[in-house]
Amino acid sequence: MKVVIINSGSSSIKYQLIEMPSGEVVCSGMIDRIGLETSNFSYVTKTDKVEEILPIANHKIGLNKIAQLLMDDKKGVIKSTKEIIAVGHRVVHGGSSFSDTTLITPEVKEEIRKLCDIAPLHNPAHLEGIIVAEEIFADAKQVAVFDTAFHQAMPEVAYKYAIPTHFLKENKLRVYGFHGTSHKYVSEKAIQYLKSENKPFKNIITVHLGNGCSITAVKDGKCIDTSMGFTPISGLIMGTRSGDIDSSVLFYMMKALNYTVDEVSTLLQKQSGMLGLTGYSDLRDIESNAEQGNKDCQLALAMNAYRIKKYIGSYTAALNGLDAIVFTAGIGENSANMRKLVCTDMDFFGIQLNDAENEIRSKEIREINLPESKTKVLVVPTNEEIEIANQVYSLLLK
Amino acid sequence: MKVVIINSGSSSIKYQLIEMPSGEVVCSGMIDRIGLETSNFSYVTKTDKVEEILPIANHKIGLNKIAQLLMDDKKGVIKSTKEIIAVGHRVVHGGSSFSDTTLITPEVKEEIRKLCDIAPLHNPAHLEGIIVAEEIFADAKQVAVFDTAFHQAMPEVAYKYAIPTHFLKENKLRVYGFHGTSHKYVSEKAIQYLKSENKPFKNIITVHLGNGCSITAVKDGKCIDTSMGFTPISGLIMGTRSGDIDSSVLFYMMKALNYTVDEVSTLLQKQSGMLGLTGYSDLRDIESNAEQGNKDCQLALAMNAYRIKKYIGSYTAALNGLDAIVFTAGIGENSANMRKLVCTDMDFFGIQLNDAENEIRSKEIREINLPESKTKVLVVPTNEEIEIANQVYSLLLK
Repeated sequence: MKVVIINSGSSSIKYQLIEMPSGEVVCSGMIDRIGLETSNFSYVTKTDKVEEILPIANHKIGLNKIAQLLMDDKKGVIKSTKEIIAVGHRVVHGGSSFSDTTLITPEVKEEIRKLCDIAPLHNPAHLEGIIVAEEIFADAKQVAVFDTAFHQAMPEVAYKYAIPTHFLKENKLRVYGFHGTSHKYVSEKAIQYLKSENKPFKNIITVHLGNGCSITAVKDGKCIDTSMGFTPISGLIMGTRSGDIDSSVLFYMMKALNYTVDEVSTLLQKQSGMLGLTGYSDLRDIESNAEQGNKDCQLALAMNAYRIKKYIGSYTAALNGLDAIVFTAGIGENSANMRKLVCTDMDFFGIQLNDAENEIRSKEIREINLPESKTKVLVVPTNEEIEIANQVYSLLLK
Repeated sequence: MKVVIINSGSSSIKYQLIEMPSGEVVCSGMIDRIGLETSNFSYVTKTDKVEEILPIANHKIGLNKIAQLLMDDKKGVIKSTKEIIAVGHRVVHGGSSFSDTTLITPEVKEEIRKLCDIAPLHNPAHLEGIIVAEEIFADAKQVAVFDTAFHQAMPEVAYKYAIPTHFLKENKLRVYGFHGTSHKYVSEKAIQYLKSENKPFKNIITVHLGNGCSITAVKDGKCIDTSMGFTPISGLIMGTRSGDIDSSVLFYMMKALNYTVDEVSTLLQKQSGMLGLTGYSDLRDIESNAEQGNKDCQLALAMNAYRIKKYIGSYTAALNGLDAIVFTAGIGENSANMRKLVCTDMDFFGIQLNDAENEIRSKEIREINLPESKTKVLVVPTNEEIEIANQVYSLLLK
């Protein structure tokens, strides 16, 4: 069964064609800078690679171009769009309406549209992608997979803010959490990996460190708490986002320093985090500068790790236990240095890193703790596209 | 040696006359509603009690009235203000300038005045109290004891926010922490109490739960992290304050709901926390309603305890260990229910509450854990006035 996975952004489309249930990636690619004269287009199969710079005016033209190549006599992988049984759409914000993968109906689209209010950067672009895909893959089932869905299992003590209840309800203000597809995927992979051990792995903390960073407490496979909140700004320190910050700092900027709301928002989202602390937003630059003695970079790395450690402690309390920590995403999978900073001086939590294993680079799931470590430390490469394809496939089997 | 302790608010003065080094409280009392026709005045000694409602126009008139009663032929406790060797002033915000108790000089006053920018609700009133006390107790040493001083030992990883470094420095934005006098007092009392045990007590978490609530990680007697930040709004859920909240919630209020900065600030500081969640701000009301089945009250108590638990986990990670938890202040000392909610399902942290001991009310320091509990759980009544007097006394002995 062939499934197309689409991640539609405001000026981009990422896509994969996946054969299910094997999970084989038949074809993948992306378009960015949609609307400009110089859009980048890519299309990669096992035998061919197409890369072009050309004007792509809108999502419809972009997705049509993808469909044409998919059916191309020479470079194509299907004969007709009818071969596509389902299209899985990544949707960032499912609010409180969607706690699971959902077949897209007019009502579902309307609900995603309503959520544009609280996800103005993401949901409009997803809707656009859905509408265009409905036209081009007219015979396929259209399915939405929400970044927030995995976190909908959280109990009210974890997702409620301590501001007036009526106000929260009227405005749908709560912790939603993000990166849910990734946290679900890697926590399930970890549980599967640990099955051979002679003890249950009930309490797992998944640490997703990429451009955005978030951390989730998973009990018996279900999310019970997560560090991103109403939007993806809170929690850990990120490339350009501040993560957690005292609200009085925001008040001070606006009242005493006369910043506008937009200026504060831009500062916290685009000029803060590792960038604000060091002048660099790419962790590799920060790590190499820190190695060469740059004090700001050293401090920023220490702050980043310190906050992750505190969240691990916090979620261990929420779980009342800790069986495994899972690192994933760009930084989590590739920065041995960050993993070491996080896992140092964490004996109380039963964490003992195997330095040699930690240094090994691999695209496989792997264990990087010492044999005597009570808590397992795993690196699990995330794969949101495969997880979306799995969820679409499971839904269709139901 | 007689010491007067003054806590001067914008429309109030609380005072005590303490004999040092015994710590005997010779006299105590307060004035509130200063500036109104109906100020409340009280003056209490071992033998006398004066309570009046009268107009007190300003702090100077108020403190003069206190001085007159202190020297009164019948109800007085001193013959002359010259008997007062020192006046200890509680000062909420010492910024980064003061990491210890300080003799007040013109330069110190100027520095406290400069800090009015970041502590507009507190420091102007403290300055007023200092200036008036200098006139009335002209022969006494004037000493400032800062709420922030204990927290100045925090390392940079803990006190720095992840926003641009130059911006932090220019605007003195950082975690200052508050209730320092209380956290210092109860952590020292706890260490002293635990001396008889045959193991070191290096890692202590102090939980101050009153009108304001804060929690502090104390390593070897020094603060290494605390939950209040730039101002006393962040961290735990309080009577009317939200504590930690995602900054995007604030942006949403201002951008989508058209709230002004002042409205958001008022909402978070005065209408949130337990009041916002339940309609009640007094924990006793909330507890009795919860007992009678009020779901909002039950949830608010659970949320409050959940956040304290998560901070205990977080600070255990910061400390990489946990030897004792100390509850203090109004709620911490008196609510057996809140202590039980916090200490339930915390086995991973070695916390095992003794339910019978927990229920006992007392004004003494006491241990409320089971004998086999690896982590000690103590209730230590706080006494900020005595701590201020101790600090003043120590400074004068130097």
